[in-house]
Amino acid sequence: MMSWLDEVKWNAEGLVPAIAQEADSGIVLTLAWMNRDALAQTAASGLAHYWSRSRNALWRKGETSGHTQHVREIRLDCDNDAILLMVVQQGGIACHTGRHRCFFQRLDRGAWHVIEPVLEDPRTIYGEQSGK
Amino acid sequence: MMSWLDEVKWNAEGLVPAIAQEADSGIVLTLAWMNRDALAQTAASGLAHYWSRSRNALWRKGETSGHTQHVREIRLDCDNDAILLMVVQQGGIACHTGRHRCFFQRLDRGAWHVIEPVLEDPRTIYGEQSGK
Repeated sequence: MMSWLDEVKWNAEGLVPAIAQEADSGIVLTLAWMNRDALAQTAASGLAHYWSRSRNALWRKGETSGHTQHVREIRLDCDNDAILLMVVQQGGIACHTGRHRCFFQRLDRGAWHVIEPVLEDPRTIYGEQSGK
Repeated sequence: MMSWLDEVKWNAEGLVPAIAQEADSGIVLTLAWMNRDALAQTAASGLAHYWSRSRNALWRKGETSGHTQHVREIRLDCDNDAILLMVVQQGGIACHTGRHRCFFQRLDRGAWHVIEPVLEDPRTIYGEQSGK
C-alpha cells in the first residue's frame, strides 16, 4: 500500500526541509530537516521531530531544552519536497541561541544585523552542553 | 572586504533554501532555492530571485507569470544557512498551480488532501508553457 510518506520527494540524502511556523502569531520560527522517520514520528506523536545533519541523529525538538513543538497541522508543498508545520512553541523559544526564533538577523544597508533579543541564556537552557 | 553574501553558508551545490512569507497575512507562500546571484539580485532589485534546480537557471519570480514578489525584508537564520523573505505577492498567486501558496496539501488521517482552491488556470497564467 502506498503510504503518504512515499509521496514525499526526499532528496539524495533522504531529507526534506521543514519550516516551523507558530500557529497563533504566524511567526516563522525555524527551518530544519526531516527524514522519513522524523516525519512519521512527528505525525504519530504530535511533537516535531527532525533530523540533525550535524549530529546525524533523529531528534525530538526540545528533548534537551524542554522547548517542544506541538504540531497542529502538517502541510506539503506543490512539488512534494517541502514541509510546513503549524506549531505551538513550548516556552516561547525555538532557537538554540535562546531567542524566540532562528530568523533573528536582518539585512540592512549591506550587512546582517541581529534584531531580536536573547530571552534565555543558552547555558541555562542546555546546561554546559550547547546545540540546537 | 567581507561581503554579507560571504556570511551565508551555501550548501555543496552553492544554494540555500529561501522561505517567502506574505508580509501582511503572515502566510508562508513558498520554499525555493537561492544561489549567491539570486540573493544578490534580490537585495539589489527588491524583487525575489531564485535558482531553479530543475532548469538550472537564475529566475526572477514572476518573469513569465507576472506574479512578482516585492521584498520588504530579508532575514537569515542562526546557522546562516536559511533565508526568510517578507514579500508582497503580486496578483495574490505564488504557486505555479494557480493557487495562492504552494503549501496547499494538508495531512489528514494518513493522507494528503488538497485544501486550497486554484485561483487562476495555469494555462492562462503561463500560456501553453508550464513551470514554476
